[in-house]
Amino acid sequence: MKIALDALGGDFGAKPNVLGALKALKHNPQLEVVLVGDEGVLRQELSAQGRPVLPKRLSIVHAPETINMDAEPAKECRQKKNASIVVCANLVRTHQADAFVSAGHSGAAMVAALFGMGRIKGVLRPAIATPMPTYRGVSLLLDGGANADCKPIHLLQFAVMGSTYMQKVFDIPAPSVGVLSIGEEETKGNMLVKHTVPHMRKIGVNFRGTIEGRDVNTGETDVIVCDGFVGNIVLKLAEGLARTMINLIKREVKKRPLAMLGALLSKGAFKAVKNHTNPDVYGGAPLVGVNGVAIIAHGRSNQTAILHAIETAARLVEKDFIGDVGAKMAALAPTFEQIEKSLHEEN
Amino acid sequence: MKIALDALGGDFGAKPNVLGALKALKHNPQLEVVLVGDEGVLRQELSAQGRPVLPKRLSIVHAPETINMDAEPAKECRQKKNASIVVCANLVRTHQADAFVSAGHSGAAMVAALFGMGRIKGVLRPAIATPMPTYRGVSLLLDGGANADCKPIHLLQFAVMGSTYMQKVFDIPAPSVGVLSIGEEETKGNMLVKHTVPHMRKIGVNFRGTIEGRDVNTGETDVIVCDGFVGNIVLKLAEGLARTMINLIKREVKKRPLAMLGALLSKGAFKAVKNHTNPDVYGGAPLVGVNGVAIIAHGRSNQTAILHAIETAARLVEKDFIGDVGAKMAALAPTFEQIEKSLHEEN
Repeated sequence: MKIALDALGGDFGAKPNVLGALKALKHNPQLEVVLVGDEGVLRQELSAQGRPVLPKRLSIVHAPETINMDAEPAKECRQKKNASIVVCANLVRTHQADAFVSAGHSGAAMVAALFGMGRIKGVLRPAIATPMPTYRGVSLLLDGGANADCKPIHLLQFAVMGSTYMQKVFDIPAPSVGVLSIGEEETKGNMLVKHTVPHMRKIGVNFRGTIEGRDVNTGETDVIVCDGFVGNIVLKLAEGLARTMINLIKREVKKRPLAMLGALLSKGAFKAVKNHTNPDVYGGAPLVGVNGVAIIAHGRSNQTAILHAIETAARLVEKDFIGDVGAKMAALAPTFEQIEKSLHEEN
Repeated sequence: MKIALDALGGDFGAKPNVLGALKALKHNPQLEVVLVGDEGVLRQELSAQGRPVLPKRLSIVHAPETINMDAEPAKECRQKKNASIVVCANLVRTHQADAFVSAGHSGAAMVAALFGMGRIKGVLRPAIATPMPTYRGVSLLLDGGANADCKPIHLLQFAVMGSTYMQKVFDIPAPSVGVLSIGEEETKGNMLVKHTVPHMRKIGVNFRGTIEGRDVNTGETDVIVCDGFVGNIVLKLAEGLARTMINLIKREVKKRPLAMLGALLSKGAFKAVKNHTNPDVYGGAPLVGVNGVAIIAHGRSNQTAILHAIETAARLVEKDFIGDVGAKMAALAPTFEQIEKSLHEEN
């Protein structure tokens, strides 16, 4: 099993990637990791970590170009054949690696994966599936931002792929699926939701109905389905709001000497909350629907986040996530065709 | 100045409404309040509060019917002419009241207001404008859920009405306006946002560009514009997430005796955070675009929330919010027409 790692991806350069890779090799003796990036920089970082000689099962593929975040990802990926993320996707396509992990720009990763690896047969739109910490455990939200405008058929496919992911990675036999909407009644929502919901029970997922914004963080729904516009706003809002709450508490605590003592005594509890809501432990966000395992880690990933992303990638390969999604898509092809036809007639 | 209060609206029946009304009368000697609801119930509550005789400036309009929350609001409002919310809207239409306040079902209130009072000339879609607590102060988000599917012209009008509201109620001379989207670049977003943004600078608001989910709670944008589907999800998510964070902290604190002591010492700080994020003090959510002042208070409103909602309603009447929005709509009519034409040509 070989994982390609976009080893300069993320906000902190080579270090967390190299350390995460070394840890992953230690944890799993079956694993090989390919560091993809500027070889000079990577060798320097390995030396800094006391590894001037490449350890067994670790290799480097030189990829000196970098994607300009401000430019258009599609253009960048086409022009820069030696950008690390493009090389990662090509390693998977040519079976020189079984999966890739990147903490780089998710838009660029999606484009590189699409160009390099293509889609699983039958999948219309790959999505970014993002694990979210909740009150109890984790829920998977998709699409997290790859497709700003969606059609019902896309949401239906997200439900199938998200369910498969939760089965494979979190061992949930029949993950519950909810469509994010407004109001719990199935008659409410926008046109997209109204046209999606009636077909949700035809596609073999454990559909529980629509859920509201307030239900996103309870953990009662394993797979939360929405378009990428709503999904990205939800993810960013949750991130921002958690930070705002912590900052508000800090601000008020600092005004009160007694509260400062109290906060000191409560430190363990706050740390536990922080750990609980830390997305690093959930193994990154898979790009579901592309024809190969691809995991996006958060831009601010530390070595633990990289380690978990590599382990998740390995798990998906081991459990044949791609093959399973492919088989489901093939089996559902007539159903999807029928649904598309009836949706077309409705309009 | 006379405010009609849907006096049995909300989750807690007559009590918070009656107490809120009594407080409002005490605070403002120019104010009159009409309690609208079942007279027997209201007189009983007034007696329970030591007011068997109606105080000066307080009156009752008997409205015995109640809206069934589970039924379709439009049908309910048409059939139940004596439902309190329908009576409230009609009191405003017939100039027997200057504004109404309700803590009842917001969908029913919107329908009753639309049927009873109509729209301000030129407004295509009234919206629910919801004040949100932020790290610093308050931001107004609209639409909060009245219009699940919107067109660019609706969002443009929301921007104008929301700006006017922040000017009148929060005394901000040129409220900053942001369109909620994904990615800060104006080229990102869904089709709705992409078609809205290019016209935002033509309508006389202080447009600052698009904002992301993470920017919603910073307080840097005074008026946040989005469709009612996204808006409702944002509001409910923020509510749910704040609760989840508090519950997580409580859960972890309870596991640790020292932390429990710490929490006791920090109590003042947590109370301050709770007060800061308490939407009760922001005066409820106005229905903007209907032809009369109408304020929706939260279903769980206590007397303070009702008091603030009544005071906000009075302020909007005093400052001629309706007249001002009407004047802006009239002045912008040619601009809106031109924008609609160019949007039509784009499609």
